[in-house]
Amino acid sequence: MDNGMEHIDTESKAGTTPAELRPRIKLQLVRNDICFGPGIYRLLRLIDETGSVRLACQSMGMSYSKGWRILARTEQQLGYPVVERQQGGKSGGASSITEQGVRMMRKYEAFTGECERQVQALFEKYFGDE
Amino acid sequence: MDNGMEHIDTESKAGTTPAELRPRIKLQLVRNDICFGPGIYRLLRLIDETGSVRLACQSMGMSYSKGWRILARTEQQLGYPVVERQQGGKSGGASSITEQGVRMMRKYEAFTGECERQVQALFEKYFGDE
Repeated sequence: MDNGMEHIDTESKAGTTPAELRPRIKLQLVRNDICFGPGIYRLLRLIDETGSVRLACQSMGMSYSKGWRILARTEQQLGYPVVERQQGGKSGGASSITEQGVRMMRKYEAFTGECERQVQALFEKYFGDE
Repeated sequence: MDNGMEHIDTESKAGTTPAELRPRIKLQLVRNDICFGPGIYRLLRLIDETGSVRLACQSMGMSYSKGWRILARTEQQLGYPVVERQQGGKSGGASSITEQGVRMMRKYEAFTGECERQVQALFEKYFGDE
């Protein structure tokens, strides 16, 4: 009987104890349209890792044409290229991130990192008792 | 000729000058699922203003059933009711926000307001030169 009750308690904890309340933040930079945000940041990281816009899009479950549309919009809004296109040839069209693109990625990382820390501190101030 | 050039300048400014880069922030509170965020906050404000879940959903271009699903999820995640349902009767089923719901709205407003100010300050630190 004791074992049975312990078993029920464990089940109950695993199944129904609510996760802790926490903040989730999404940060975008906008001009006339979205300029930079978590999606384009992830896409650029994957292009950097794989050397391929196609593989990066595949990793994100995104169509190749949608990937290029996002890159085009980003470059149009930023006013400079973020991806160096090396199409075709024996290297199979490897792509890389431009110097300005890398600089933007580093700034976005630093900005979002610091924002997340401050939002977490404010969350604890307002919702620490929830 | 001078007038013509001035006209062209004005057109050009109105049509092509890019808007200033600015941050856009989305803040949600999550537990196992989304608990509170800008969508539910707006829905609750509209219910408060109109006294009607139906009218609030209409204002947001949202189906009545989706509105109730969002309210149910919010209450399930928060662990308390946010809307007082007064169904049918001569008053036509007016709805209001519970005391706990109002308290949550006020905390969310204060939290997001302070987060937005801090994010703006960090944005200027990192992107003030863009």
